[in-house]
Amino acid sequence: MARISANHDKEGTLLRLGEAVRARRKTLDLSQEALADAAGIDRSHMGKIERGERNVTFLNIVRIATAMQCSPSDLLIEAGL
Amino acid sequence: MARISANHDKEGTLLRLGEAVRARRKTLDLSQEALADAAGIDRSHMGKIERGERNVTFLNIVRIATAMQCSPSDLLIEAGL
Repeated sequence: MARISANHDKEGTLLRLGEAVRARRKTLDLSQEALADAAGIDRSHMGKIERGERNVTFLNIVRIATAMQCSPSDLLIEAGL
Repeated sequence: MARISANHDKEGTLLRLGEAVRARRKTLDLSQEALADAAGIDRSHMGKIERGERNVTFLNIVRIATAMQCSPSDLLIEAGL
């Protein structure tokens, strides 16, 4: 997915989503690599998603949430979005 | 964003999200064109998002929700996701 500049994410929504992914992942005691593998997402891409550096697609949000046993809306609520 | 095949969206999540966008848009009495313009999204792309034919990005979900005066998590909850 597209590299994203701060100009396109003025509200920091990608960063907040990435932080919510990281927080839940740590609660589950999963490594970033284990989550990437469980979600079927490239490991380096997962790192960029957690850092808010990529405009993650909806299907990848669904995959990440599923791999962390929650719903996509749960993740967004945790991100305050 | 990438055209998406049914194989990549086995659970129909894009379709459910698109239907939630359409339902809220109609409640607001907005045309698809008016919503696309308010969200800053290409009109034909908006049609594909509502039909679940594109893997919508998170920033576009945020833009669509903002244009419909709700949060991204509200939209996902309305989609049952």
